[in-house]
Amino acid sequence: MERPRHQGMAKNTYMRWRLPLVCLLWEVAMIVLFGVFVRFSPEADAHWEEEKQEMNLTSDIENDFYFRYPSFQDVHVMIFVGFGFLMTFLKRYGFGAVGFNFLLAAFGIQWALLMQGWFHSFKSGKILIGVENLINADFCVGSVCIAFGAILGKTSPIQLLIMTLFQVTLFAVNEYILLNLLHVKDAGGSMTIHTFGAYFGLTVTRILYRPNLEQSKDKQGSVYHSDLFAMIGTLYLWMYWPSFNSAISDHGDAQHRAAINTYCSLAACVLTTMAFSSMLQKKGKLDMVHIQNATLAGGVAVGTSAEMMLTPYGSLIVGFICGIVSTVGYVYLTPFLESRLHIQDTCGIHNLHAMPGLIGGIVGAITAAAATEDVYGKEGFIKAFDFTGTYQTRTPSVQGGFQAAGIVVSLLMAFAGGALVGAILKLPVWGDAAAENCFEDDIYWEVPEDEESDVYHMHNPDKPASP
Amino acid sequence: MERPRHQGMAKNTYMRWRLPLVCLLWEVAMIVLFGVFVRFSPEADAHWEEEKQEMNLTSDIENDFYFRYPSFQDVHVMIFVGFGFLMTFLKRYGFGAVGFNFLLAAFGIQWALLMQGWFHSFKSGKILIGVENLINADFCVGSVCIAFGAILGKTSPIQLLIMTLFQVTLFAVNEYILLNLLHVKDAGGSMTIHTFGAYFGLTVTRILYRPNLEQSKDKQGSVYHSDLFAMIGTLYLWMYWPSFNSAISDHGDAQHRAAINTYCSLAACVLTTMAFSSMLQKKGKLDMVHIQNATLAGGVAVGTSAEMMLTPYGSLIVGFICGIVSTVGYVYLTPFLESRLHIQDTCGIHNLHAMPGLIGGIVGAITAAAATEDVYGKEGFIKAFDFTGTYQTRTPSVQGGFQAAGIVVSLLMAFAGGALVGAILKLPVWGDAAAENCFEDDIYWEVPEDEESDVYHMHNPDKPASP
Amino acid sequence: MERPRHQGMAKNTYMRWRLPLVCLLWEVAMIVLFGVFVRFSPEADAHWEEEKQEMNLTSDIENDFYFRYPSFQDVHVMIFVGFGFLMTFLKRYGFGAVGFNFLLAAFGIQWALLMQGWFHSFKSGKILIGVENLINADFCVGSVCIAFGAILGKTSPIQLLIMTLFQVTLFAVNEYILLNLLHVKDAGGSMTIHTFGAYFGLTVTRILYRPNLEQSKDKQGSVYHSDLFAMIGTLYLWMYWPSFNSAISDHGDAQHRAAINTYCSLAACVLTTMAFSSMLQKKGKLDMVHIQNATLAGGVAVGTSAEMMLTPYGSLIVGFICGIVSTVGYVYLTPFLESRLHIQDTCGIHNLHAMPGLIGGIVGAITAAAATEDVYGKEGFIKAFDFTGTYQTRTPSVQGGFQAAGIVVSLLMAFAGGALVGAILKLPVWGDAAAENCFEDDIYWEVPEDEESDVYHMHNPDKPASP
Repeated sequence: MERPRHQGMAKNTYMRWRLPLVCLLWEVAMIVLFGVFVRFSPEADAHWEEEKQEMNLTSDIENDFYFRYPSFQDVHVMIFVGFGFLMTFLKRYGFGAVGFNFLLAAFGIQWALLMQGWFHSFKSGKILIGVENLINADFCVGSVCIAFGAILGKTSPIQLLIMTLFQVTLFAVNEYILLNLLHVKDAGGSMTIHTFGAYFGLTVTRILYRPNLEQSKDKQGSVYHSDLFAMIGTLYLWMYWPSFNSAISDHGDAQHRAAINTYCSLAACVLTTMAFSSMLQKKGKLDMVHIQNATLAGGVAVGTSAEMMLTPYGSLIVGFICGIVSTVGYVYLTPFLESRLHIQDTCGIHNLHAMPGLIGGIVGAITAAAATEDVYGKEGFIKAFDFTGTYQTRTPSVQGGFQAAGIVVSLLMAFAGGALVGAILKLPVWGDAAAENCFEDDIYWEVPEDEESDVYHMHNPDKPASP
Repeated sequence: MERPRHQGMAKNTYMRWRLPLVCLLWEVAMIVLFGVFVRFSPEADAHWEEEKQEMNLTSDIENDFYFRYPSFQDVHVMIFVGFGFLMTFLKRYGFGAVGFNFLLAAFGIQWALLMQGWFHSFKSGKILIGVENLINADFCVGSVCIAFGAILGKTSPIQLLIMTLFQVTLFAVNEYILLNLLHVKDAGGSMTIHTFGAYFGLTVTRILYRPNLEQSKDKQGSVYHSDLFAMIGTLYLWMYWPSFNSAISDHGDAQHRAAINTYCSLAACVLTTMAFSSMLQKKGKLDMVHIQNATLAGGVAVGTSAEMMLTPYGSLIVGFICGIVSTVGYVYLTPFLESRLHIQDTCGIHNLHAMPGLIGGIVGAITAAAATEDVYGKEGFIKAFDFTGTYQTRTPSVQGGFQAAGIVVSLLMAFAGGALVGAILKLPVWGDAAAENCFEDDIYWEVPEDEESDVYHMHNPDKPASP
Repeated sequence: MERPRHQGMAKNTYMRWRLPLVCLLWEVAMIVLFGVFVRFSPEADAHWEEEKQEMNLTSDIENDFYFRYPSFQDVHVMIFVGFGFLMTFLKRYGFGAVGFNFLLAAFGIQWALLMQGWFHSFKSGKILIGVENLINADFCVGSVCIAFGAILGKTSPIQLLIMTLFQVTLFAVNEYILLNLLHVKDAGGSMTIHTFGAYFGLTVTRILYRPNLEQSKDKQGSVYHSDLFAMIGTLYLWMYWPSFNSAISDHGDAQHRAAINTYCSLAACVLTTMAFSSMLQKKGKLDMVHIQNATLAGGVAVGTSAEMMLTPYGSLIVGFICGIVSTVGYVYLTPFLESRLHIQDTCGIHNLHAMPGLIGGIVGAITAAAATEDVYGKEGFIKAFDFTGTYQTRTPSVQGGFQAAGIVVSLLMAFAGGALVGAILKLPVWGDAAAENCFEDDIYWEVPEDEESDVYHMHNPDKPASP
């Protein structure tokens, strides 16, 4: 039995034909495009036996699979369980959080394999994919999950799929400009994933501004157990972030170093988050919103520099600062952005991804500019920044400048792309809910009756309480 | 304080002596058999230092441990957290779902190490075990977890242990027939794990048919948070399935390829599941039952072919189809099976494992039959299908025929074995609950009072509601 | 709206300035000390390119990162999700369990990197850290998480941070005595982590004895879903324990063997836990407390011997015994310790860590004493026990004696250290809660209203129940 509610009067949230149509059409398109373009990389192809002999490899362990697959699986968990469960904190939007994140990420990784493939793995008319492509596809979708955080609870699954289509496309273009044209380093994606993803999402939510959102204010909070579900997401993001930032770094010391730097930054971040969470609240109590989110800012902020010689204490300093910036953001900036700039940011991605992403870009630029042959070693220096071929003569300070340019480009792409996509999503045909029905799974999901409603029925005046 | 209930009048569910006896006796048997038979494989034995020199290995990294351990851990998570939590969707059977799954799997892996060891790792009177044996034991137990899904909530822990004993035994025999006698490829177990496990479980539940099960209909549903717990299981199965299908493939390209194919198939499956879940419901809303289960069918269905040159777009097609088949199964077939064929399938394993398992066997047969030296390379072709020794002259089309025979053998073993085991479990001595007490943890577990019962007590007419 | 409560009258639990001060000061100290002392190990440093040539390594895969990183991540999950969620079983202390565990572990790993670094990785004035240091830091913090289990719900976050500071210090000293001075083997930490951590925590909780703790007895239990959250912790600890015990073993067969032994021990442990849980309860029902905890004792008890030639059946025997000992401990010993010895052990760490840890130390001593060149091979024997240099002439039986001495030293360090730290924590300035407010998140956390309180308000006599 369903509780009576007046279903978004002016809004048609009926998904029955629209959602299936979009899902099926797009999946068919994926199949066709994969059929035309996607093949296995040499290391995943059955011809590898011959390839191995040509490349004079003595062992199967030299296959990139063994260098990167464990990191890939950690990243995979971050995208689906990490982001999915992090967003289950809302009391009645857990199905939407986990389920829509699942839907958009499953579509996004396919489209990302194509888009990134055309730019980076295109050989003789085919996209050749291996484990590194899978990681990059997950990364790309990570930026969509971030943007989803800003509009959580306020959009229909169709809007999310449309946003994913566009955002993945723009991500790939931005990534190409940064990595290939500017020759920027960004292994953990402070710029390409976090800065781009967050400002894209914030622009979208600004354009989708809902003046009457306070009508669903009672559903914007958490309940006790939804906060524990969210902590599952938080911890998996926190624990596996070293894998995230090291997943596509060069084999050997770079992967090793990226993991250590990220581990250090995240550890420091937890302490300053706890400190400021308590300090900024009158009663001195800790706030789960901060613990769930700001503790992760340290991972975001070493995304660019983790594979560089940032050093463990440098990482601690970055984590220290970001825990503070992020927590302060939750307390002061989010309300300001909502009331003054009309940016309704459900998960506070501005505090967790946007500001730490910017910091990460800047830290990366400084760390690159400060690089010396003394610190990296002669060969290590060239390898770390890939100063070969055309870039043979690039100096660290020039590299720092290009890194900074990468931040600017990412921001511009995010604002322009977000504005475009926001405008498309504003069209009144995508089935989003009315303001009073936001943050409510009941609109798009079959929701089971539960204890709460049993209790409700007990009090139903039409039914005696004690039969 | 316990709520009064009339405990399964005719049924004795008292476990106090029966369950401990079975557990202790069987564990003692395991110790004795392990003592007689089980030793370390050369790669896990301290003699490895000498072995390495004999085999002319230059590095410890050549130890199979480093090729397979990360995949093993992912598979391990799938068996214990994946299957365990997937079944917590029932509102009052979460302890039984996670706890009994834990019990049967912990026993099953020991017995599987022995059974599979006798067939596959038996040398000079000893079973030599290494990491690959651990994976295979987990795989074998996976088929028991699948069968458990059909009888979830309706059986006692003793029945589950007995089923595990027999099913593991039959699994090992069936696996031996397929892999050794028919020389069939089935690395991800579409046939050996899913088809066998599911039809075995369905046969058992058919024989254990309970005509009065509607007496516990109110407990067969979920509550809001139990659906979120179940999503933990779903996501871990979904994310780690690439590890499952690649865990025991040949080192190098085969493992690499199996992971990629599975990743693709699963991604496509999510979109068609969402599409049909919305389409088949009058109000167009998504159903968590489908999202929790049908999204996984794509992993089942590439179990045989993932390590072959199925190609990414081939995988997308398989996933596309299976998302549809599985969701349609939940909507139309499960009710039909229950009302007409008296198959009460609690978790819908027919839709998630049986049909996709069959499809997986068929796709494997076709992919094998279609193999050419051109696609695989000369050496890759021989390596992929192990066309050496006795099988040197086997052609792809003959291999395809044997693959198809493997499906038939698995089905026959499942039906015959399931009938036998079902008959044994029907004996009225194993302590299963009466129909009105099914799907209720309270029968076998100490269940804490919780908010719900606090509320209940508030309304207790013997106690004033507001003291 | 907050439920009225009389807040720990005599106790000041206000954290606003004290907690931030401790967190920030300590983190600044970490930054300074890391800045002075911590640098990358050669395998994580950009000079690795040159190092590789000097060491004549042909492949990046020889970097220790690829031998240990997957195990590190599993250990990391055990510390943060495993211990964190295991302790969420209390009905109203989930935030504290996960959140404070997060806080103390994040601080502890930094301090452990320093303390362990000074003892073990100190070269030319610098601590050089790599992935093995990260694992060891997590291990060290594991012993603090164990001790936390004894005082769960009864201490302020400041007390936990102080305990962490001291316990990590003492852990490092004890570890140095065992590994370096006594030349003891303890790869999985039966002695250094479990015996030390548990008896340390038990001593602390003895000194912090609260005579009026029964005032919060109603909050010491679980609710249905909190028990399921706790099972997440249990299963991750159980599944990843093979990684824990093998994480820092020698490359190759030792890691391989340690994983297999632990897998076997844990499997056996589940069956005897289930058996005794049912047997020791009048109604024969299973108790989630046992399933959540005693099933893990098998992992603790092979911590020392897992990397030795314990053999699979030896492991089964150890697991068999520990499941019994631990479950019996929960039923009989914990109440006895509380009523007679005034040891209030919230999570029963005496049963899960203390007794199995002692057993583990003893099993290790016996296994070492029983070692022969026949079983290990000539080279394997020397490698397994590191009988080189000063220890070239040490015999297995002497090694067994030193192993036994390691247990005694760990116990003495635990008692002395626990007494000291307990005395410090007893000072009335750290903001712990009054007895009637123990096991209650509301003291230190912003807790959302939830269904329960909605229900409460419905019954509020000031407000009509059916409006």
